[in-house]
Formats: sequence, C-alpha cells, structure tokens
Amino acid sequence: MNVTVIGLGLIGGSIAISLRKRGFATHLVGVESSEAHAAQALKLGLVDEILPLAEAVTTADIVALAVPVNIAREMLPEILDNMKPDAAVVDVGSTKNGICTAIHNHPKRSQYVASHPMAGTEYSGPAAAVDRLFDGKKVIICEQELSAGFALKRVLAMYKTLKMDVLSYADAAAHDRHVAYVSHISHVSSFMLGLTVLEVEKSESHILDLAGTGFASTVRLAKSSPETWTPIFLQNADSVSHALEKYIENLQQFKSYIDTNNAEGLRKLMTEANEIKKIIK
Amino acid sequence: MNVTVIGLGLIGGSIAISLRKRGFATHLVGVESSEAHAAQALKLGLVDEILPLAEAVTTADIVALAVPVNIAREMLPEILDNMKPDAAVVDVGSTKNGICTAIHNHPKRSQYVASHPMAGTEYSGPAAAVDRLFDGKKVIICEQELSAGFALKRVLAMYKTLKMDVLSYADAAAHDRHVAYVSHISHVSSFMLGLTVLEVEKSESHILDLAGTGFASTVRLAKSSPETWTPIFLQNADSVSHALEKYIENLQQFKSYIDTNNAEGLRKLMTEANEIKKIIK
Repeated sequence: MNVTVIGLGLIGGSIAISLRKRGFATHLVGVESSEAHAAQALKLGLVDEILPLAEAVTTADIVALAVPVNIAREMLPEILDNMKPDAAVVDVGSTKNGICTAIHNHPKRSQYVASHPMAGTEYSGPAAAVDRLFDGKKVIICEQELSAGFALKRVLAMYKTLKMDVLSYADAAAHDRHVAYVSHISHVSSFMLGLTVLEVEKSESHILDLAGTGFASTVRLAKSSPETWTPIFLQNADSVSHALEKYIENLQQFKSYIDTNNAEGLRKLMTEANEIKKIIK
Repeated sequence: MNVTVIGLGLIGGSIAISLRKRGFATHLVGVESSEAHAAQALKLGLVDEILPLAEAVTTADIVALAVPVNIAREMLPEILDNMKPDAAVVDVGSTKNGICTAIHNHPKRSQYVASHPMAGTEYSGPAAAVDRLFDGKKVIICEQELSAGFALKRVLAMYKTLKMDVLSYADAAAHDRHVAYVSHISHVSSFMLGLTVLEVEKSESHILDLAGTGFASTVRLAKSSPETWTPIFLQNADSVSHALEKYIENLQQFKSYIDTNNAEGLRKLMTEANEIKKIIK
C-alpha cells in the first residue's frame, strides 16, 4: 500500500517505521516542512522519498497527518482536494473538535477519519521515532459515522498493524473535554513543576542534585515539544482552562491545610487521591 | 552485626532485606506498631523477631528508624536512652530540621546520624519492601559534625552496603527548603492531579479509560501513603507552602495565557520548562 506520512516527528516517524516493518506500507512518502528533519528522516530510512504536499498525496492509498493540530486543521482541506477518491486520510491530533468542525462541510469529508492515538514520549523529531510506540496503547476514533466505510476500514487496518486497541468515541467535543483532564492538564502540571524548580534553582544552586525518581517522573512531560503543545492547549482552551481551575483550587485547598496545620484535612485529601490506585495500575 | 529496624514498611523493610542479603546484618530485630504489619514482616522473613522498642534497642549495634517523621521525632530520645554507648541510630525521614532541632541537646546526640535516603516507590507496607530499592540512589547526611566518628562510620558502612551515593549536606534547614522543591511539591502536584481527575470522573464516567502513559507517570505519586506524607508536609510547612505558592502562580500564569489565546506566552513558558532536559535525563 502507498502510504504518505505528513510530519516526520515522533508520531509520524514512528508510524512510518512500524508500517514498513510490518508490511503494511510498500512505498512510503514523507512531507516535512523542516529541511533538517526531512534530511534526517531520509537518512534514518523512515520514508523512501520526500515530496511537496499536493504531489505526495495524489498517489497515496492512505495519508497519516501527524503535524501540530493547528497546522493539521489548515492542511486537511488541501489534502482531501488532492487525494484519490478511494484513499483515506487520518489525523493523529490530541484535539478533535476543531478539525472536525472545520472539515464538516467539505465535499470529501467521508474520506477523513478523525483519530487520536494515545501514545507518545517526551521526545520529539525524527530521531525520537521508534517501532512499537503504539503497541498495546489505545486509539480513539471520533465521528466515525461521518467516515465512509472504506476509509474507516483502511484506517482500522492501519491501527491493527500498529497493534492499537480501538475505542470508538463518537463526540469530538466530549473527547476534547475528557482529554483535558486525563492528558492535557498532566502536561501543564509537569511543565509548570519543571519551571518552578528551575526558577528556584537559579537562586539556590545545586538543588537539582537532590532530585529523586519521584521528581523525575512527575516532571518527565516538561520535556515535551512547545510546538506540539501550544496549539493543543489553544484548540482545547475552554476545557483545559476549566480543568486547570479545578486543579488550582485543589492545590490551594491543600496549601491552606498546610498553612493551618490541618493534618486531618491533608490526610483526607490524600486518601481520596489514593483512589487512583484502583484505576491506574 | 545486630541490626534493629523500627518501622517495617517500604523503607524499613527494604533496608532489612538488603542488609541481611548482603551480609551486613547477622541478627535482625523489628519494631512495628501495627500487628498486621508485624505478622506480615515475620512471615516474609524481613526480620528474625519483633520486640518492644526498649528491648529491641538495647542489644543493637545499629538502629534504623523508618517511621513517619512525626513519630520518629517522638521516638528518638527513648531510642538514644536505651542504646549501648557504642551503637548508632540513623533515621531515614524526608524532613530533617524538626528532628535535628528536637534532639540537639540530648546527652547522647552524637550517637545519632540524620539522613535522608532519596529512594522509594509509590507503594507502602512490608509487602512493598524489595531488595535493591536504594542501589545507585542518593542519600543526604545532615549535621554530620554533630555525630560521633564511630556512629557516622557505621551508618556510612550501612549505606555503602545499600549501594547509595552519599551527599553530605550540613544544614538541616537548607535540606528541608530544597527537598520542598525537588520532592515534596512533586507529591502535592501528583496527589491533587489524581484528585482533580477523580472528581470529574464522578460526573463524567469512563474518562479514565482514556488515560495514557503521560497521565500515569504524573499521577504515580498520588498512590503514596497519607500516613507518611501528612507529617512531612506539616514538618516542612513553610518551605512546602512557599514552593506551592510559586507553583500555583506559574499555573495561573499559564492559564491566563490560555484564556487570552496568547500562543507566544505559552510557548515561552514551555520552552523555559524544557530546560529541565539538561538536568533530568
């Protein structure tokens, strides 16, 4: 199958590696706006050739769109305009409502499948791409009733090759509201924790010598790409802002219990938080 | 060597396992206030016998005090009172200023070594104890000039057996101020993130089906023991409160950039946070 991957970073590059290795892709075309990343992707053998967008799309059987969510929304109409009528395009963005709304009335809407593979690492760029990034992880499909049967079938075959568990999730707005809590505020929490510690490190040197594994795991996501995450937060502004408001309120409550030496209050909040054990193994 | 471990949870239990396995302890006595934990520790073979505090301490060559920091501070005078004059006691608490101040004028102060091994997991109790928990991790020693040479030597031999890297850190108050940033607010951040998501899960069911690996790593510490952490936060109240204030300010700044659609502001904050890459591998 002719596969075109647009955006050869962590996600797009990893898709390319696994689809080739597992025999799904017979020819792989890449589209990449960064010349450095394009050269690196060719050198690493992620794709067979790099082509301009319109050209890369015309012969593809399936197009995987793996660029920041604001750019994905801009590019999708042009991709659909240039695709074969029996080809499918799937995006992998972490927000779904903006792109689904923008493309809703496009005459070729049915060739598009809105998806969100819940996989990644804190690293970015073609060199971060790895096989098996998606194995055993979940992928959410939104608005599947607006996708043509053949397009959906092809995209599901791709995700099967990537060994992902498919969760169908009809409503794009509900998807965004939910991932604000289970993904987006985790990133904000981690970014701002890293920043807070770096700020104090400037005045009190060497405190990071004391960082243990607990700090390392909570701050891991602070290494993530600002180019990827800025448009995600802005496309999902209402939900992320609401989630952050709740999070800040809980932190303030916790702080007030510390400030008033309220052991019972602290113990109660932490015991409630412990319930996460039952859900996250 | 006769070793007594007071508190047979994750930390005390892991110390017992490694000290026996590596030949440092020839006889291991445990002190444990929970009958269930005491029975479990015996069954798991963590210690040879369980004794009451005074009795457990009289014949020990070294005592490891691994109970919540408020209880450690209460118990330490009695431990010193009952120890042989050539024995050493070391505590493993995450706060050092309270216990060091409380014990400062004790006639046997020099038999005590104040330490903080920076190791742990989110699990607790005797069943959570594992060998190699401390291997390659850091341990901080505070106020070493107040410990007798023989006591310090014995404690350092113990940490060498546990394969820890010793960082001497003279000032207990500075230790507490620094770990507020690199350990304690990580825990608050994670506890309150878990709580925030659980609260919204109540009204919007199944959102945790969507949780990915990023959420799992930021929320890992939310499984930690409230019994361990409540007294740590209260003993280090000023520093944790100050660190939380800075953290909340940064979160509010981030939220205000989302609310005002300020991509440049968001990108700048995240790019600054990315600097953590250089420090945390």
